[in-house]
Amino acid sequence: MNIEDKARPNCAVVGVFGHPQASLIAYYALHAQQHRGQEAAVISTVYFDEKKQKMRYAYNRGAGLVLDVFADNKIFSDVLIGSAAVGHNRYSTTGSSSRANIQPFNMSYHSGILCLSHNGNLTNTKTLRTQLINEGTIFQTTTDSELFLHLIAHSKKPTRLEQIKEALQIARGAYSLAIINEDSLIVARDPHGVRPLSIGRIKLDNGKYAYIAASETCAFDIVNAEYIRSVGHNEIAVINQHTLETGEIESHKIIDKTPVAKHCIFEYIYFSRPDSIIFGHRVDKVRRKLGKNLAQEAPEIPKEGEKIYAISVPDSGNTATLGYAKVNQELGHNTAFEIGLIRSHYVGRTFIYPGQNNRAFKVKTKFNTVKGVIEGRNIVVIDDSIVRGTTSNALIKLIREANPKRLAMRITSPPITSPCHYGMDFPSKEELIANHYKTEKEIGNAIGVDDLHYLSVEKLMESVPNDEGIDYCTACFTGIYPIEIEDNSLKKK
Amino acid sequence: MNIEDKARPNCAVVGVFGHPQASLIAYYALHAQQHRGQEAAVISTVYFDEKKQKMRYAYNRGAGLVLDVFADNKIFSDVLIGSAAVGHNRYSTTGSSSRANIQPFNMSYHSGILCLSHNGNLTNTKTLRTQLINEGTIFQTTTDSELFLHLIAHSKKPTRLEQIKEALQIARGAYSLAIINEDSLIVARDPHGVRPLSIGRIKLDNGKYAYIAASETCAFDIVNAEYIRSVGHNEIAVINQHTLETGEIESHKIIDKTPVAKHCIFEYIYFSRPDSIIFGHRVDKVRRKLGKNLAQEAPEIPKEGEKIYAISVPDSGNTATLGYAKVNQELGHNTAFEIGLIRSHYVGRTFIYPGQNNRAFKVKTKFNTVKGVIEGRNIVVIDDSIVRGTTSNALIKLIREANPKRLAMRITSPPITSPCHYGMDFPSKEELIANHYKTEKEIGNAIGVDDLHYLSVEKLMESVPNDEGIDYCTACFTGIYPIEIEDNSLKKK
Amino acid sequence: MNIEDKARPNCAVVGVFGHPQASLIAYYALHAQQHRGQEAAVISTVYFDEKKQKMRYAYNRGAGLVLDVFADNKIFSDVLIGSAAVGHNRYSTTGSSSRANIQPFNMSYHSGILCLSHNGNLTNTKTLRTQLINEGTIFQTTTDSELFLHLIAHSKKPTRLEQIKEALQIARGAYSLAIINEDSLIVARDPHGVRPLSIGRIKLDNGKYAYIAASETCAFDIVNAEYIRSVGHNEIAVINQHTLETGEIESHKIIDKTPVAKHCIFEYIYFSRPDSIIFGHRVDKVRRKLGKNLAQEAPEIPKEGEKIYAISVPDSGNTATLGYAKVNQELGHNTAFEIGLIRSHYVGRTFIYPGQNNRAFKVKTKFNTVKGVIEGRNIVVIDDSIVRGTTSNALIKLIREANPKRLAMRITSPPITSPCHYGMDFPSKEELIANHYKTEKEIGNAIGVDDLHYLSVEKLMESVPNDEGIDYCTACFTGIYPIEIEDNSLKKK
Amino acid sequence: MNIEDKARPNCAVVGVFGHPQASLIAYYALHAQQHRGQEAAVISTVYFDEKKQKMRYAYNRGAGLVLDVFADNKIFSDVLIGSAAVGHNRYSTTGSSSRANIQPFNMSYHSGILCLSHNGNLTNTKTLRTQLINEGTIFQTTTDSELFLHLIAHSKKPTRLEQIKEALQIARGAYSLAIINEDSLIVARDPHGVRPLSIGRIKLDNGKYAYIAASETCAFDIVNAEYIRSVGHNEIAVINQHTLETGEIESHKIIDKTPVAKHCIFEYIYFSRPDSIIFGHRVDKVRRKLGKNLAQEAPEIPKEGEKIYAISVPDSGNTATLGYAKVNQELGHNTAFEIGLIRSHYVGRTFIYPGQNNRAFKVKTKFNTVKGVIEGRNIVVIDDSIVRGTTSNALIKLIREANPKRLAMRITSPPITSPCHYGMDFPSKEELIANHYKTEKEIGNAIGVDDLHYLSVEKLMESVPNDEGIDYCTACFTGIYPIEIEDNSLKKK
Repeated sequence: MNIEDKARPNCAVVGVFGHPQASLIAYYALHAQQHRGQEAAVISTVYFDEKKQKMRYAYNRGAGLVLDVFADNKIFSDVLIGSAAVGHNRYSTTGSSSRANIQPFNMSYHSGILCLSHNGNLTNTKTLRTQLINEGTIFQTTTDSELFLHLIAHSKKPTRLEQIKEALQIARGAYSLAIINEDSLIVARDPHGVRPLSIGRIKLDNGKYAYIAASETCAFDIVNAEYIRSVGHNEIAVINQHTLETGEIESHKIIDKTPVAKHCIFEYIYFSRPDSIIFGHRVDKVRRKLGKNLAQEAPEIPKEGEKIYAISVPDSGNTATLGYAKVNQELGHNTAFEIGLIRSHYVGRTFIYPGQNNRAFKVKTKFNTVKGVIEGRNIVVIDDSIVRGTTSNALIKLIREANPKRLAMRITSPPITSPCHYGMDFPSKEELIANHYKTEKEIGNAIGVDDLHYLSVEKLMESVPNDEGIDYCTACFTGIYPIEIEDNSLKKK
Repeated sequence: MNIEDKARPNCAVVGVFGHPQASLIAYYALHAQQHRGQEAAVISTVYFDEKKQKMRYAYNRGAGLVLDVFADNKIFSDVLIGSAAVGHNRYSTTGSSSRANIQPFNMSYHSGILCLSHNGNLTNTKTLRTQLINEGTIFQTTTDSELFLHLIAHSKKPTRLEQIKEALQIARGAYSLAIINEDSLIVARDPHGVRPLSIGRIKLDNGKYAYIAASETCAFDIVNAEYIRSVGHNEIAVINQHTLETGEIESHKIIDKTPVAKHCIFEYIYFSRPDSIIFGHRVDKVRRKLGKNLAQEAPEIPKEGEKIYAISVPDSGNTATLGYAKVNQELGHNTAFEIGLIRSHYVGRTFIYPGQNNRAFKVKTKFNTVKGVIEGRNIVVIDDSIVRGTTSNALIKLIREANPKRLAMRITSPPITSPCHYGMDFPSKEELIANHYKTEKEIGNAIGVDDLHYLSVEKLMESVPNDEGIDYCTACFTGIYPIEIEDNSLKKK
Repeated sequence: MNIEDKARPNCAVVGVFGHPQASLIAYYALHAQQHRGQEAAVISTVYFDEKKQKMRYAYNRGAGLVLDVFADNKIFSDVLIGSAAVGHNRYSTTGSSSRANIQPFNMSYHSGILCLSHNGNLTNTKTLRTQLINEGTIFQTTTDSELFLHLIAHSKKPTRLEQIKEALQIARGAYSLAIINEDSLIVARDPHGVRPLSIGRIKLDNGKYAYIAASETCAFDIVNAEYIRSVGHNEIAVINQHTLETGEIESHKIIDKTPVAKHCIFEYIYFSRPDSIIFGHRVDKVRRKLGKNLAQEAPEIPKEGEKIYAISVPDSGNTATLGYAKVNQELGHNTAFEIGLIRSHYVGRTFIYPGQNNRAFKVKTKFNTVKGVIEGRNIVVIDDSIVRGTTSNALIKLIREANPKRLAMRITSPPITSPCHYGMDFPSKEELIANHYKTEKEIGNAIGVDDLHYLSVEKLMESVPNDEGIDYCTACFTGIYPIEIEDNSLKKK
Repeated sequence: MNIEDKARPNCAVVGVFGHPQASLIAYYALHAQQHRGQEAAVISTVYFDEKKQKMRYAYNRGAGLVLDVFADNKIFSDVLIGSAAVGHNRYSTTGSSSRANIQPFNMSYHSGILCLSHNGNLTNTKTLRTQLINEGTIFQTTTDSELFLHLIAHSKKPTRLEQIKEALQIARGAYSLAIINEDSLIVARDPHGVRPLSIGRIKLDNGKYAYIAASETCAFDIVNAEYIRSVGHNEIAVINQHTLETGEIESHKIIDKTPVAKHCIFEYIYFSRPDSIIFGHRVDKVRRKLGKNLAQEAPEIPKEGEKIYAISVPDSGNTATLGYAKVNQELGHNTAFEIGLIRSHYVGRTFIYPGQNNRAFKVKTKFNTVKGVIEGRNIVVIDDSIVRGTTSNALIKLIREANPKRLAMRITSPPITSPCHYGMDFPSKEELIANHYKTEKEIGNAIGVDDLHYLSVEKLMESVPNDEGIDYCTACFTGIYPIEIEDNSLKKK
């Protein structure tokens, strides 16, 4: 539902190499991934400065949406020149949302220049920061991204690849990275591969290929890039001049023994766009299966001669709702898929609210009901998750104003009971509604629906792809954290 | 589809009376009607200036979306004070889109102050302007709205209501107006009632009611207003202190003999939001019927053992597609409603395009396909209209990239062959694709689909509400203009 | 001293004709005249629109200094094209300083297009406005400038020159005007010629001349224009294609019998820049004479063996102080000219003041004392005028902090006792300090000096040029208004 | 003359401690010192964050003038809170003028938080940077200021004062610093004290004192601060709670043996405002003496019966011109001080020039001549220095347009022949006009005057204060650099 009572992914990354308009490609790719972070955007490029006769980096950044930050298109030809670029959509999970943290993450250091873009959260940030600070390092921001820069700059390894590798070995937690320097694009996913990252290629006018890496493949579609593969967990992939010539992508391991992957299952449930490929699979298919399995597990049964109208909370719930409606019908329950909620196309961050932040009002500026669809009917509304419950409550109130006969709710994920330490922005344990009540019935009462069911963890696991060597992180539902939390401050949380 | 190859409505209006935060209400109402005009927004209020001890007007305006124009919320408490407000979302149909034409339309004149907001196009503008200019009148803009101001100011009638009435009698064409002065909100629709306008009321904390008028009732929902009724065609309705006290709304006729109404049928097909009530009826219901009748008229029949997947061009086509899929299924053709196109939530007017305005690219920044839904399947895509055909062509190309087995198209309106002189922004006759080809087959070929059908005018008329005394303007499909076109320049067009 | 406790001139005008970069010339000319109005600036041009194949006008305007309003220099080549331009620096005397009044004053009317720029105040504005409003005219602003537009547009005369002439006959008061239309630059001064306006010419690269008119000739110097002559009082001068070819400037009378001129004497005392020629004479020379005559009339006499240090309030008082010091010395009083006050170069309108508008603080942000010059010495500070006395008081306090032994003050004008109705912005009679006290001694006490003398009206008249047919308006000193005040509201003031 | 052909000071600093509105005081102080740097401004404060219950820093910065950067005054109460502040006006001497270098210089490090402001140039920057970079330090900017931060953070000394002291011992060259941390304001001048820095105090409403340090004391005057003393060369002065209570200022040495000071003599000649106290002496007095000595050395002698008119290039040359005129007269040469050049008050950095950067035009937008003063007379124009000669040449041309009979020039400093490595921005040796010609006569010819004389180094030394233990840096005139230049890149220059 995307109002603030949601889990939030931390950011999108993009890297481009070998394209004459690298920054423009990065711009489109960031726009396509806007849903992963609307707080700020930045693009950095590496280019050859004719005047100074040396390689340099350039960047542009700003708070807000990609389209606004780069509203002046001269920036692409005048400033962000060069054939390599990295970009970032920020949603603040580490570091406050303060201005300083919107900094680009570029550096000139002893081994050259380096621009970095990062998605994920580290679990030993505090420990590493303290250590570096005590040695005299000055941090400009409180982000994990800056930490990577210092770790790389402090490495005594002879090559830049080895410096990066060493830094990634020291950092622990979740990270998907895109890095450019004078001669390559380096992309990596942490040993458990919590966050997604894929590689694609773009055919140029001269018949050659440029390369692109992005968190989600919807970024490839917008620039006509062809999907190649997912970056492996525990992989550092290097794209350089050799790649441009031969198509070969160098591949290195971060740590010697690659563990079982622990993909973030919430990427399939809610974060990613349905038209993206994530961890090698189409999100849309998974999400439909979530809906289907939910109907299997918790069908909504009409009274004799009545009918169930399944409506989605647009747009994230659409596909799952189609799946739910289909299976519910197949189960013999008279069911129709309907469009009962209209989503505004113009909601932005500048909306002005009367008095305090009125959640009911916020929901109203984002959704409106189609009264003819809802009035006097048995409605089941399908949503992807419930966090605090406050927004769901407001949404249910809105739907109630259209006078449904009965109003049930189905959630395509299990109850959220634990915080995420790998990059999702959940409120504290105390604020999660599922920790306040014992049963679905109680939560349903609190939210205001006649009936509420969540998808079980088992059915969830059944819904997601089952590749060899691949497992999922389900910490937010189960409290089982697959990567050790080293920072004490996180542990206490 | 809302890219530039569409018919465009000209503007939304709102009027508020008797509300302590009238401008804030107008702001929300304009936001809810943002789809009717994204070029500029303005809000004017009438208030009592304590310092000068007299009534004055205030306004704020700007190019762009409502949320951006009024991004600084202090404007509502510091500038736009007063309990009466009018507002306007502009899409430029008359007058160039030049800066001057974004002017607010307020005046101090011999009988007091007056702020006006207007939706529609006049058909005798040129004639009236020439006449007034020759008498020494200076026009600041080329809009119809300013013309109303001069007509009212030049009236010699004793009361302000009579001045307005006289002006409306002189002006010919389509207009829905909201006007405020020192003591009332005056709303009106032209004798044929081409454009919509409805009245609602908002319950205040003290138990009393404030009043609101807006082009579409989705504006009422966002501010918790209750729908009262549509302003009649040929009606001038006056809301004043007496209304606040008794609930009675004064009603006057513009011309003595009220003609049969000629509602714009395109409001039902495309302009209005599905969650609005227009001309007294729910848009959603009409649009679903358009889809159903289209399936009756032009079913999409799968081969033996195959299935049809009906997908919508989101979001305007969604309801019609549901209707189409349902009836197609009921007709015995194996059919499923599917979500095959994802619409970006972040498209704005500042998007940067590489080189020339590349329509294919524009479509790509707005839509992406869900490949798993389309690949290898029989797709029928339902859209509301085709204007030039260029955008449809680009969209079809995009869908083709996902490799459907077969790709058919259905349009929930007849071919557009004639320009609109009452407020829609169509290109010239020569640019309309339906004037270039003789048959649906030819147009379908040009657009790139395997099969194309439009809804017939007869089925269209069957789909829309059939109230007594109400008829529709179908000029864009039939070339029959129900209101005389007086200006020669329009005639030639 | 230029802080708000000063008389203020109302605006500068400029007109350019026959120059390929007319708007750029206007821009420089406005910048050179920035001292006459810092509130807003506007430039309008008339040009041939190749696309529409007709003459049109363009303009740009904004609040603030010329350099800021036109900070984006593309405006000159992209928007403000054409070989004729008028421009205006605004200081609001009529009309509130509200946004609406920063409007450019351009119109398309029955006889073509016309852009106007005006300096001065009319004395029958109210009467004329009321009349026009009652006839149905809508005023967008409360300025005299708009009144001219309506008067011209309402004229039934056949030629544009006659229309303008008729309008100028109807308007009464002070006006210096620059007007452009499709084929000429028309400049005029009211029958009494209260405000200045001069004509010059600029040699172009091709050997021909372009023409320029401006309030002050310092505007000519910056663009290398050669001074031709002052526009006469009661003159309408027309510069057109014929002028470009022959150098001949058409001259017309406004009213048949040209009265004795009544030049604003304050232009010499304070408004104009010392490097300008005003009413045909160099301001610097007049101002020096004011200082000399002031010393004759009110020498500052040192005690035996002591010395007088004459310091100026920079920069307006500099020349007069040199004259004063010289004559004081010649009279046998040991006297030196000194620089005792330093003026900040960076004071702008955005200065932030702590708490309320603290006048003492404002003086401090504008001036600082050179303590070594003042400490322990007999200081006579020369200023041009005293209005409310509050700023003088704050300035004297500032100087006192540097511990002069004795502090005298001399003013190069008589006491101001009456408001100006012809374009200077004085406070009301009640606020003028000279109306609160009977003697120079009392005023001196109030301001905080040991001794105060004003220049007498007689000596003032002796100081200014004495041309035939030329007299001066001294209303602010004498209460004698040479042009009848027709508006009752002004009379009461 | 302040157009770009001038030596430029590098920046102004200010520090405030113990004032409830520390940032506002810093703002005024920076405004008063605006002449020392117009490129960018920044203010940082240290405050107690009630919400987080800890000390933090805040800052605001921007390109442009102080008044513009801090135009929104809410910043002072909403962001820049706290009773300690440092501020900086930047003129870029080290580091390019790129955006990154406008960074504020604040840090959180192992010993707490620290905000720094710096004026001057180091001579071993390159050496120190290389060393730190090789150890893994990342530099965000190319400024000396950032270098200080890293040096302090890398110090292993136990107290913050010792850390700072160690850093200052390592850095070599010219620096005047203001630093705040959680509990003190620390100010320092390099062992030779090249740049000025003074301490003052401000009486608060409660009778206590707040403290201020600034490059020039004109910053004290604007905030009613009382001058206490200059910070000594080789001194670190600490102002803390104890100072607030007792008035005692802790004083430390940077290096054990304090060398003879080497004050920048150009501060007296041109940089500082005449109303400031610099290095313990009033600038105005020194500058007058420069003029007097110049007349002694190079009097301008009129022909029999003729007279010399001495005019200044305002405003920097005013006092020296008074001194010159006086002595020239005393030497028996009939001489008058006159105001022959008027300086525009409105010149800003946004001025638009036609075509290329036309120096003649730039001079014209800044100065105008008073023709009546110059025409037909023997003029001697006094200026403070000649750098490239191009601006002088343009200025002389401007004066020539006013037709002086004879035009001589006197310069209150010796010929500039060598670059400055301690913070002044001179062009390279090759661009200095004095390196192109052998004699004053030749330079005078090149500039276009009939006669040119510079002040000799001997007379210059006679003009400046002669305190014990104080000497001056005259490197730009003599090529003798009192502080070793360690960086090779500087040496080559």
